[in-house]
Amino acid sequence: MAIPSSFCKRPESNPVPTPNTQVCLASYPKGAVRPDNFFLRQVDVPTPGPGEVLVRNIYLSCDPYMRGRMSGGAGYAAGFALDQPIPARVVGEVVDSRQADFSVGDLVWDFLRWENYTLVRDVSNLRKIDPALGPISHAISVLGMPGKTAEVGMLEIGKVQRGETVFVSAASGAVGSVAGQLARAAGARVVGSAGSADKVAHCLEKLGFDAMFSYREEPVGIALDKLCPDGIDVYFDNVGGETLDAVLARLKPFARIPVCGMISQYDGGTYALRNVGNMVARRATMRGFIIYDHMQDFAAFPARMADRMRRSEVRYFDDIVEGIEHTPEAFIGMLKGNNIGKRLVCAGDDPTR
Amino acid sequence: MAIPSSFCKRPESNPVPTPNTQVCLASYPKGAVRPDNFFLRQVDVPTPGPGEVLVRNIYLSCDPYMRGRMSGGAGYAAGFALDQPIPARVVGEVVDSRQADFSVGDLVWDFLRWENYTLVRDVSNLRKIDPALGPISHAISVLGMPGKTAEVGMLEIGKVQRGETVFVSAASGAVGSVAGQLARAAGARVVGSAGSADKVAHCLEKLGFDAMFSYREEPVGIALDKLCPDGIDVYFDNVGGETLDAVLARLKPFARIPVCGMISQYDGGTYALRNVGNMVARRATMRGFIIYDHMQDFAAFPARMADRMRRSEVRYFDDIVEGIEHTPEAFIGMLKGNNIGKRLVCAGDDPTR
Repeated sequence: MAIPSSFCKRPESNPVPTPNTQVCLASYPKGAVRPDNFFLRQVDVPTPGPGEVLVRNIYLSCDPYMRGRMSGGAGYAAGFALDQPIPARVVGEVVDSRQADFSVGDLVWDFLRWENYTLVRDVSNLRKIDPALGPISHAISVLGMPGKTAEVGMLEIGKVQRGETVFVSAASGAVGSVAGQLARAAGARVVGSAGSADKVAHCLEKLGFDAMFSYREEPVGIALDKLCPDGIDVYFDNVGGETLDAVLARLKPFARIPVCGMISQYDGGTYALRNVGNMVARRATMRGFIIYDHMQDFAAFPARMADRMRRSEVRYFDDIVEGIEHTPEAFIGMLKGNNIGKRLVCAGDDPTR
Repeated sequence: MAIPSSFCKRPESNPVPTPNTQVCLASYPKGAVRPDNFFLRQVDVPTPGPGEVLVRNIYLSCDPYMRGRMSGGAGYAAGFALDQPIPARVVGEVVDSRQADFSVGDLVWDFLRWENYTLVRDVSNLRKIDPALGPISHAISVLGMPGKTAEVGMLEIGKVQRGETVFVSAASGAVGSVAGQLARAAGARVVGSAGSADKVAHCLEKLGFDAMFSYREEPVGIALDKLCPDGIDVYFDNVGGETLDAVLARLKPFARIPVCGMISQYDGGTYALRNVGNMVARRATMRGFIIYDHMQDFAAFPARMADRMRRSEVRYFDDIVEGIEHTPEAFIGMLKGNNIGKRLVCAGDDPTR
């Protein structure tokens, strides 16, 4: 909907507060990410020029895939630049606009940066958030990329069917928690793994998983033999490594393995898989995917997922750390598995809360 | 076509010669298959009862997958029974029939056994061979399962496209040789690996591969860096192990890996794969398949493949060992890679030769 351009003049009554804190990459981590791989700096809040929009950032995303981009080497996306704020998905509020389609007060999300204010020069990917669909943080969690990732992986690639046995690793996480619930809504029996007793309880009590185990308390193979004695039809892989190998040894015929990520390998882990050969005998399919290849029909996704939440097919929990200065620890903690649900940093007031 | 039952009476003028040599499994091989895992025995030639057909076996198939069934353990098919003739695909000639659809002199193929004469009790899978399509041995090679395996793997699963870079391991073998030529006919650039200079020359000179290397003379990764410097779109995997791992590190985006077999792992090899994680970044698909799941439309296949051979899109070479008593060595040699093309044993006169 076009908005009269008179609405888009910079309102004198809305002075932009300073300073603007940025969370920058100091160095590429070797192995585990450490706080000193980052530094904070204060810069001026930029002023939009013609066609530009200034966004006050409210929620900053912390995602596992970002670890892969914190390197100068080859990944599926270019490495993050040193000495610059970390690119990330952000929910924010338009505080200044010289672009006809956006007005002060609009709630938006886009791929912005870990900072308080981002000047959006190219608004082609700036998307408005409908607060009626749920908490605005959901725009970058269950109603955004993580939710869509779960849907593509479990329904399009995993092709889960009623009565099948599904296993989800990182089951309490931003993506795994949705993947498991979508499988359950499709009529599958859903088993998950997570890294603590709290997460196990969360998945069983809040998310409706049929069975859970903590991989820190029991070898994955032994747990799977107990909980999936007849094998696994769909494995939604978030972790790779030993867990994937244990699943490869326990596939049912025509099993599907959507591979969303391999968080166990991101810090330079090199677990070597011994059971890939079983994929022939089981006629199994393993497919790596990246959500950016599946965005053609994204427009209809938030309302579709919000409907599922209204029907209680999917419940969702954001795990929000307050304060932009805590972003490095929030991110490192997420990589270590300290979060239950989607890890976000709240960098400023949420006007809808 | 139904044949008058008068044609199916046992003709007095066609006495069945004796003896009937059977190649039986003496023991399950531990590691490499040895000649003493087999024994030969002489038995009577059976006499067909009502509804049964007696086949004189001419060509006996030696296939890599059979190694997997020479074990008491779990595979994709039941293990072969000890002290019994080895089940295998066979081309033969009907020498006695009490079944209206088959007459003496019919050339047929089916899943029979390594022996001179097989009594076929259930003729539902006994298929007649049209000698006009080519040498009758082709019914169990290029016009049969190996050819169909190549077609399913390269076209249906690999989905090869014009201009793509394709790599085929075991490129001179029964399946790989066809897979590579189908890719080339589809407009791809085709690189292959094989285990000897003779095989390399065969693939380049007789089969039209664009480039070849011997994995015994050069590490796979180094050869691939040279011959596929921009990466690999489709890898038709016959061998698994180190070769598969080298390919996983060199995938192009959206690469496909139809996994037909992993011959390098059949003798208890346990090469562990380090580069599976790259499948996420490359959005790659790996899919194991077994040809028996793809037989619904087999009836049209032999004529389709024969057409390709007539157009010289596909050339094919059977590697025939004479004498049923040499079947164990013929099989063991095939597992070691001594064959160029499809390894068969000629167990009796071919009336079309």
